Amino acid sequence: MEEKHLQSSDFIKDVVIGMADGLTVPFALAAGLSGAIANTSIITTAGIAEIVAGSIAMGLGGYLAGQTEVEHYYAELKREHEEVERVPETEKEEVKEVFADYGLDEYSQNLIVEALSKDKEKWVDFMMKFELGLEKPDINRARNSALTIGISYIVGGIIPLSPYFFVTDSTVGLNYSAILTLITLFVFGYFKSKVTGQNAVKGALKVTLIGALAAGAAFYVAKLFS
Amino acid sequence: MEEKHLQSSDFIKDVVIGMADGLTVPFALAAGLSGAIANTSIITTAGIAEIVAGSIAMGLGGYLAGQTEVEHYYAELKREHEEVERVPETEKEEVKEVFADYGLDEYSQNLIVEALSKDKEKWVDFMMKFELGLEKPDINRARNSALTIGISYIVGGIIPLSPYFFVTDSTVGLNYSAILTLITLFVFGYFKSKVTGQNAVKGALKVTLIGALAAGAAFYVAKLFS
Repeated sequence: MEEKHLQSSDFIKDVVIGMADGLTVPFALAAGLSGAIANTSIITTAGIAEIVAGSIAMGLGGYLAGQTEVEHYYAELKREHEEVERVPETEKEEVKEVFADYGLDEYSQNLIVEALSKDKEKWVDFMMKFELGLEKPDINRARNSALTIGISYIVGGIIPLSPYFFVTDSTVGLNYSAILTLITLFVFGYFKSKVTGQNAVKGALKVTLIGALAAGAAFYVAKLFS
Repeated sequence: MEEKHLQSSDFIKDVVIGMADGLTVPFALAAGLSGAIANTSIITTAGIAEIVAGSIAMGLGGYLAGQTEVEHYYAELKREHEEVERVPETEKEEVKEVFADYGLDEYSQNLIVEALSKDKEKWVDFMMKFELGLEKPDINRARNSALTIGISYIVGGIIPLSPYFFVTDSTVGLNYSAILTLITLFVFGYFKSKVTGQNAVKGALKVTLIGALAAGAAFYVAKLFS
């Protein structure tokens, strides 16, 4: 059950990562360009280029992160195996220290160490989890993570960009985009906070504020530089 | 020492997150616009808007993620405290299960449980770490994470954008930007892999490939839509 909890929380985390950035960055970019450029056709081109670039960069970034996690786990696993073979006494001391911290006496510590060290596989497993805090990562995690983040970014990014396709004046586009995106950010923040067990209204306001801040800053900085 | 290892790895992770996206997305966005727009002035405006938007969205996103981690930890801590008070026998069974999985016999399991349950604070600490896998998060983590990611994004983003400031023709800008950015991505990927203990050349090629893919895709899709 804990395993299940972890996996679905990974999925939700990926959706949140992709969607939060997908909603915010294209929204802010389009807002920034609206402050500097009157015609929406350049804004939609830039927005699409951003969504493509962002979804690939974030998706493949998620893939590499997942892969690195897997590689890191197996590198540490190999090291622990070697240490258990080479310096078993040191490793036994490390196990004892873990339990000494929790107030177990010398006698109990030795008992645990002797039981654990009978089975080297379990001993190494124990060191991985309790000394290093590493869980065996899911092999498919990297691929799933990449797809989830990438698709969430695209879905998120299309929302703030959509109004610009239907109007020619960028200020009009910005107004509709701002209304649409701020509502979406609020709803997204609300459900995100619900799912992660946070205060939903507070969470919704935070997410909306980030989007508004990013868009506002991009708007004024782009105006300054144009 | 383990604590130190963890903190510096958090810092490096944040630099990598910010820098990787900062190098890739503005590079790809500018490339995409170069395929569709001849004049570099719009590209620099869009690039700056993107860097501002991206650094704020990612930085504040990192802040919220860090804050959520802290809140999650304390919510679970409260729950474990309540459970230890309300259903101590169930919690004792959970401790025993952890050690049964590692091949400890009933006698040793009981010994550990009795020692642990003498001190409720330590018992809860134990459940947090060994049952739930949660470490006490650093209070300053959220703020540091936000700053590190945001600044890394800005530093990364200025590199691919800089050539466009010095030329008026976007294709010329793209050529210089591609050379500069692909070299930077390679060097960045090389050191990133070194630091995280991966194969450096392989890692460098991977990071460079992501940047090239994102930029290539953005270039052709933006051309299609313009």
